Amino acid sequence: MTLTNLDASIRKNRTANAAITVTLDGVPQPDRDVVVVQREHRFLFGCTGFDLVPLANGELTDGLTDGATARAERLAEHWLGLFNFVTLPFYWGQFEEERGRPRTERLRNAAAWFRERGCPVKGHPLVWHTVTADWLTDLSNEEIARAQVDRIRREVGDFSGLIDMWDVINEVVIMPIFDKYDNGVTRLCREMGRIPMVRMAFDAAREAHPHATLLLNDFDMSAAYECLIEGLLEAGIRIDALGLQSHMHQGYWGEERTLAVLDRFSRYGLPLHFTETTILSGELMPEHIADLNDYQVAAWPSTPEGEERQAGEIVRHYRTLLSHPAVEAMTYWGMTDGGWLGAPGGFVRADGSPKPSYDAARSLIKGDWWFPPTTLRTDAEGRVRFTGFLGAYEVSAAGRTAAFHLDTPGEIHATAAM
Amino acid sequence: MTLTNLDASIRKNRTANAAITVTLDGVPQPDRDVVVVQREHRFLFGCTGFDLVPLANGELTDGLTDGATARAERLAEHWLGLFNFVTLPFYWGQFEEERGRPRTERLRNAAAWFRERGCPVKGHPLVWHTVTADWLTDLSNEEIARAQVDRIRREVGDFSGLIDMWDVINEVVIMPIFDKYDNGVTRLCREMGRIPMVRMAFDAAREAHPHATLLLNDFDMSAAYECLIEGLLEAGIRIDALGLQSHMHQGYWGEERTLAVLDRFSRYGLPLHFTETTILSGELMPEHIADLNDYQVAAWPSTPEGEERQAGEIVRHYRTLLSHPAVEAMTYWGMTDGGWLGAPGGFVRADGSPKPSYDAARSLIKGDWWFPPTTLRTDAEGRVRFTGFLGAYEVSAAGRTAAFHLDTPGEIHATAAM
Repeated sequence: MTLTNLDASIRKNRTANAAITVTLDGVPQPDRDVVVVQREHRFLFGCTGFDLVPLANGELTDGLTDGATARAERLAEHWLGLFNFVTLPFYWGQFEEERGRPRTERLRNAAAWFRERGCPVKGHPLVWHTVTADWLTDLSNEEIARAQVDRIRREVGDFSGLIDMWDVINEVVIMPIFDKYDNGVTRLCREMGRIPMVRMAFDAAREAHPHATLLLNDFDMSAAYECLIEGLLEAGIRIDALGLQSHMHQGYWGEERTLAVLDRFSRYGLPLHFTETTILSGELMPEHIADLNDYQVAAWPSTPEGEERQAGEIVRHYRTLLSHPAVEAMTYWGMTDGGWLGAPGGFVRADGSPKPSYDAARSLIKGDWWFPPTTLRTDAEGRVRFTGFLGAYEVSAAGRTAAFHLDTPGEIHATAAM
Repeated sequence: MTLTNLDASIRKNRTANAAITVTLDGVPQPDRDVVVVQREHRFLFGCTGFDLVPLANGELTDGLTDGATARAERLAEHWLGLFNFVTLPFYWGQFEEERGRPRTERLRNAAAWFRERGCPVKGHPLVWHTVTADWLTDLSNEEIARAQVDRIRREVGDFSGLIDMWDVINEVVIMPIFDKYDNGVTRLCREMGRIPMVRMAFDAAREAHPHATLLLNDFDMSAAYECLIEGLLEAGIRIDALGLQSHMHQGYWGEERTLAVLDRFSRYGLPLHFTETTILSGELMPEHIADLNDYQVAAWPSTPEGEERQAGEIVRHYRTLLSHPAVEAMTYWGMTDGGWLGAPGGFVRADGSPKPSYDAARSLIKGDWWFPPTTLRTDAEGRVRFTGFLGAYEVSAAGRTAAFHLDTPGEIHATAAM
C-alpha cells in the first residue's frame, strides 16, 4: 500500500454504499423526505477509562473550591465526545491487593457506567508479570498457577455480560525472562513455558465466558511476537484478536512502519487491535532508553509545538489504522496528561483543556468519518442511497424512527422498518 | 554462576575422576607402570573447513613459485592441531547452482578427508533464505516445497555415514520476513509459516537419516528464538541440538552476556552448539550496523593490539562455554582472515602465520584441558587413578595398548583390557 492511497483504502474498507428501503407499517415509502443519521461507529475508537472510575463510583467529595466532580464530569464529556469503547484496569496487584478482597464492586460500577453510555468494555489484563499480586511470591508455583486460574475464572465470570472482552495475557514474549524484580507470574511462566501458560489462561477465560472476545497483547512488534503467535496457533489455542501495543514515547512510528507492522501481523487472519497507543505532545524520550520505565523525569510538560506535532501525528495514525482492513479497534492510552511515566500523551492537558489533537481526532471520528443528520428523498421504490461509514444508523420521518446497521464494506441493501 | 568459579564449573562438568583397572589377557596388573594418554576430546572443538575443500579434492595446481598446496597443507596442519570437528558448506545456491548438478562428489571427498583425520562432519545448511538456489524463484511455492524436500532427502541420504549431523534450517526467526531480496525460501516460509516449514525440513532429514543429529540454527539470541523454539517443541518437532550463532564482529560478548544466553537457551533441556563464533583481531564493526552484511570496507586488517585482545577474548569465550554443562560443541567461523565480510576473525593471518589466539586456544585445548602421556603405577588391584578431561584415552604397557573412554563427568570406574 502506498501512502497516497490511504484515503481510498479507508473508503474501501470502512464505508458501505447503502440502499435502504424505508417502510412504514410494512409499506415502502416512495418520494418522501427522511432524515438519516449515524448513531455509532462500527470501528472501536477506544481509550482507557481509568480516570473515570472514581466519578462512576461517586467517590469524589468536593470541598468548597475543589471542584473535583466538575472536573471529572468535564473530562467525561470530552471522553464521550471522542470514544465509543473503554479499557478498564484489572491489574491484579491493585484489583486484589489483599488476597481475598477483590475490588469487584468498584469495577462493576465503572463498567456499568460506560455500558450505560453505549461503550463496550475491555478488561486489562488478567495475567501480567508487572503489577501482579505481591502475595504470589509467598506461594509455590503450583499454588500460583491455581490462584491465577481462579482469579481469571472469577473476574471473567463476575463481569460476564458487562465485560465481554479481555486482554487475557500481557507481554508473554518477555514474561519468563523478565528480570527487573522477582514476581510470581514470571516464576511460573519460566517453569511452564510460554505456550502452556497462555493455554492455561485462555482455557480458564474461555470456560468462564465462552462468548467473550479474548486477546493476546504485547508491546514487542518484532519477529518474537510473530514466533509466539505462530507457536500458539500451531498449538491449537484459539485467540480472538491480537493486541499490538504502540506506546510512541520515543516518536511517532510513521505510516511506513505502521503499515509494515500491520502487514506482518495480519498474516494470521486474526483481527488486530491497537491496544495501547501513546503519542506525545512534549519532548520525546531519548531513543537509547530500552525499557520505557527507566525514563524518570521531574516534569514532562506539554508544549505548543509538541501539541501541533501530536495533532498531526494522531491524524496520520488513525488514518493509517483505518486504512487496513484487519484493524478492528484502537485504544488510546490515556485521555489526560500525566499518566504512565508522567508523559504528556493525552488528548487533554492536565488542566482539563483539550489539545489540538482532540479537535483533530474529533474532526475525523465525528466529522470526515461520520454521517451527520441528512435529509434524503426516497426514490420510486421507497429507497434512499448514500455512502456512510460502517456503524449503527437511524432513519426517521413523521415522528417514526427505524434503526439499521452498515456492517460490511461495499454494497448493502437493507430495509428500515418504521 | 559467578565469573570467578568458571574453572570450578569446567572441572565439574568436563572432567572425570577415573579409576581404571588395567588387565592383560583378562588378568588385572597390580604394581605396574603404565602410560595413559588422551587421544581425543569429547567436547566438539569445531571450525569451518571450507578452505580445505580444494586440498581434499586435489584441486590445487601449483605453478613453480605458487606454493598453493604447501600453503593449504600448512593450514591443514594448523587446523588439525586445534580442532576435532568440522562444518562443511552445503549452501544450496553453490552446491547446486545449476539445477540437477549437485557438487556431491566434491563434498564427499572433503567429508572423507576430515573423517579420515578423526573429525566428525556437520553439513551447513539444508534450508536457508540466503545463498539459496536462484532458480527457485522461477517455481511456484508448491514446486519450491517439493524441490526443498527433495534436496534435503538427497543430501542427507547421500552423505549418511559420512555426515551424521546437519544444520537443518538456518535463521527461521527472520526467514518469512527477510526483505533484502526476493528468494524462494522466504516466499515459501511466508506462505507456510515458520513451524510447518521447520517441520517439513526436519521430517525430510529425519526420514533420510533417522540417526543423524539435527540442529535448528539461528543468530537471533533474543526472546524471538526462544518463542520459536517453544513453538516447535510444543508442536512435537524433535530437535536434537540448538545452534546458537555468535558472530562477534561488533565486540566480544563477555562472560556475563554469554552466561545469560546459556541460561536462557538451556531451559529446553537440549544440547547447545555454539555454531558460528567469530572474534576479531582488528577494528570492531560499529554498533549501529544492524545487519552485519551492510558493513563493507576496502580493507580490514588484523592489528597487533587486536590480536592480543582476540587471544584473551577467545580464552574467555572457550572457558565460558566449557563451564556450562549444556554446551556440547563450539564451531569457530573460519580459520583464516578474510572470510565472511573480509573480517580479521581467523586464528591464522592471511599469510598463514598463527596469531596469538592460536597458541592461546591450543594451550587450553591441548594443554590445560588435555591429559598428556603420563606414566602411572597401578595399585594392588591393578587400578590407576587420575583426573582427566572427558574423551577417548589409551593405556599401554609392554607394547600392548587398550582404549577406554571418559564419557561422563564425576567418578568413573572402568576396565581397560589389553
